[in-house]
Amino acid sequence: MRINKNYGNIEETYLFSEVAERVRQFMAKDPGACLIKMGIGDVTRPLCQTAVKAMVAAAEEMGTEKGFHGYGPEQGYGFLRDEIADYYQRTSGVKLFSDEIFVSDGAKSDIGNILDIFDVDNVVAVTDPVYPVYVDTNVMAGRKVIKLSATADNGFLPMPYPGLQADIIYLCSPNNPTGAAYDKERLTKWVEYANAHGSVILFDAAYEAFISDPDVPRTIYAIEGARSCAIEFCSLSKTAGFTGTRCGYTVVPSGLIRDGVQLRKMWLRRQTTKFNGVAYPVQRAAAACLHEQGIAEIMENISYYKENAKIIADTFTELKWPFTGGKNSPYIWVQCPHGMKSWPFFDDLLSRANVICTPGAGFGDCGEGYVRFTSFNSRENTEEAMKRIREIYGQE
Amino acid sequence: MRINKNYGNIEETYLFSEVAERVRQFMAKDPGACLIKMGIGDVTRPLCQTAVKAMVAAAEEMGTEKGFHGYGPEQGYGFLRDEIADYYQRTSGVKLFSDEIFVSDGAKSDIGNILDIFDVDNVVAVTDPVYPVYVDTNVMAGRKVIKLSATADNGFLPMPYPGLQADIIYLCSPNNPTGAAYDKERLTKWVEYANAHGSVILFDAAYEAFISDPDVPRTIYAIEGARSCAIEFCSLSKTAGFTGTRCGYTVVPSGLIRDGVQLRKMWLRRQTTKFNGVAYPVQRAAAACLHEQGIAEIMENISYYKENAKIIADTFTELKWPFTGGKNSPYIWVQCPHGMKSWPFFDDLLSRANVICTPGAGFGDCGEGYVRFTSFNSRENTEEAMKRIREIYGQE
Repeated sequence: MRINKNYGNIEETYLFSEVAERVRQFMAKDPGACLIKMGIGDVTRPLCQTAVKAMVAAAEEMGTEKGFHGYGPEQGYGFLRDEIADYYQRTSGVKLFSDEIFVSDGAKSDIGNILDIFDVDNVVAVTDPVYPVYVDTNVMAGRKVIKLSATADNGFLPMPYPGLQADIIYLCSPNNPTGAAYDKERLTKWVEYANAHGSVILFDAAYEAFISDPDVPRTIYAIEGARSCAIEFCSLSKTAGFTGTRCGYTVVPSGLIRDGVQLRKMWLRRQTTKFNGVAYPVQRAAAACLHEQGIAEIMENISYYKENAKIIADTFTELKWPFTGGKNSPYIWVQCPHGMKSWPFFDDLLSRANVICTPGAGFGDCGEGYVRFTSFNSRENTEEAMKRIREIYGQE
Repeated sequence: MRINKNYGNIEETYLFSEVAERVRQFMAKDPGACLIKMGIGDVTRPLCQTAVKAMVAAAEEMGTEKGFHGYGPEQGYGFLRDEIADYYQRTSGVKLFSDEIFVSDGAKSDIGNILDIFDVDNVVAVTDPVYPVYVDTNVMAGRKVIKLSATADNGFLPMPYPGLQADIIYLCSPNNPTGAAYDKERLTKWVEYANAHGSVILFDAAYEAFISDPDVPRTIYAIEGARSCAIEFCSLSKTAGFTGTRCGYTVVPSGLIRDGVQLRKMWLRRQTTKFNGVAYPVQRAAAACLHEQGIAEIMENISYYKENAKIIADTFTELKWPFTGGKNSPYIWVQCPHGMKSWPFFDDLLSRANVICTPGAGFGDCGEGYVRFTSFNSRENTEEAMKRIREIYGQE
């Protein structure tokens, strides 16, 4: 019996535990401090009523002889896949076929599990700073991971460069943690690169609902040629507040063929073998969110967070702190003032403003000197945090 | 870019599609036939009211500011892990620690995903006939799979034999498809084998709630030494009718160490990296099922299916058809009469009794000459199907 030795190569991420520890130490010294958490990566607004009603109705259905649902299709019920297809059509004019859409318990699961269908020998490219899951899941499998620097010089949007050899490319747009988003022109270059090199782009669109700029695609399939090189992951987590309700979807277009095999068929085989579908009441709730009244209600929540993001962005503009994100994204990635590094600024902000952010260095080498703010908070807290920041740092 | 070529080695299972096709052809010839499906592997009784109420309450909670739940712990909420620990204590006197229990969206997912933590070079042993997931998930990863014959000679319970070299051993007890269940003495031999050889037993206990024989363990941890060699998978699918609600759990004891590493820690790393927990309302429903009133209600459903199983078993006893299962299991594995092979008997039963079973040959070479009946049907249908079988085959 041998264990998978690659697990020994995963770097432990102490980012959030270190944040928690420093906050704990601070509170021990100053128990009366009124802390505001601006580093939260989780939504905070309740599920919309349309989703609640749909889930309640479906749960009650499950308690009846006639309405009981046992095993459903592993790839999701038709009623939800149809709603997802409609959503793409409405928001982006993109036509997807129902059998290209796979419903799951969330984008994180699919982003990890999709790697099953690829050989271990592929070279993986991720951007730096990066959502750690992209790296860890590949290190676990023994793949080589190369990093593409996201810096102020490239607008935090790394592009393919001459000589780049990458088989699997992770793009997250709008990005976590930077909030930067690829416009059509830039994304087209990646699609061209992938088609020319036979690479596959794993496109994480988890934050697509935050996009308001018409030049920023909400799906990679808005780019010509993407259907032959890209798999897209999306989720209701940030779109509809489903972080604790768990429903996402993955699109594998029929035209995506490698080594003569449709990746759609491989993923279908993977999912039918290692997955058994999403709870029926959750799928009903998800479908309700993507339909008329549901859309209106979830967009209200998105607008709320976007207004928070604007308040944060306006503050940093006023302070002349260079930042990205905040417009098409719930995240604001800001350069620490006075050339401070991430952790010293984290400490400074905590002790002087009693505001908690996330140190950018925790997301990769290129994150050093930056911190991440999120808009997943109440209006009141967001305004209060920015008020404190302006008062303290505006004087310097 | 290279795909995972091992996918090309997975055998396509045509079992259920072939069953569906033969039924379709039969119905085309005889549209008026009143078919009874005795091959169903899915539960048919509605969710118990306690589960429905808990899910409804939790869904409503999610729609409130105070009751909203975002990301939960990847390994499940404490309230559910505690209920599961209590369940083990009550049903088997087995003490588990909360951090050894991992809640998931179902046993199928975990049985597939657990392989992430093992090296590709391990030799895998499965029983034949077999639940295809055990084989396919390993073939996908490129592992060598050996088969242990489950036949009438060994009571459909393969045992370790001199010279057996197996690193990972799948045991499903009560078994799908045979319904045979390991008693303490037999299971102890497997635990001894695994500890002596450093193997890991993957114990699928999905049908444990159907066990009534006190000599048949409901968990492998009832066997001394199992905590250093076994991972157990269980689920509310068959226990509480959760096939469409999706909640299961996996136990990785702290004492299970290989290559100097706690497998519990590896699995925790796997789940925190590639999984994001189960829907909060589903976890609430699961916890409710395992608590007092819930247990009473789910055991009512189990009793209903067990009574169906008894009706089937009594019929085969009367007809003198050798069978196994039906006592500690919802499945009855019966030898086809007159030395018929699986598919000819399937056809015979379909055309003469209008009853659908599952041909045993579809589960492996050792399944030839057998068919599987299940108790997941209404009492009325079960009785009618058995009446037809007695009338037709009792005369011969």
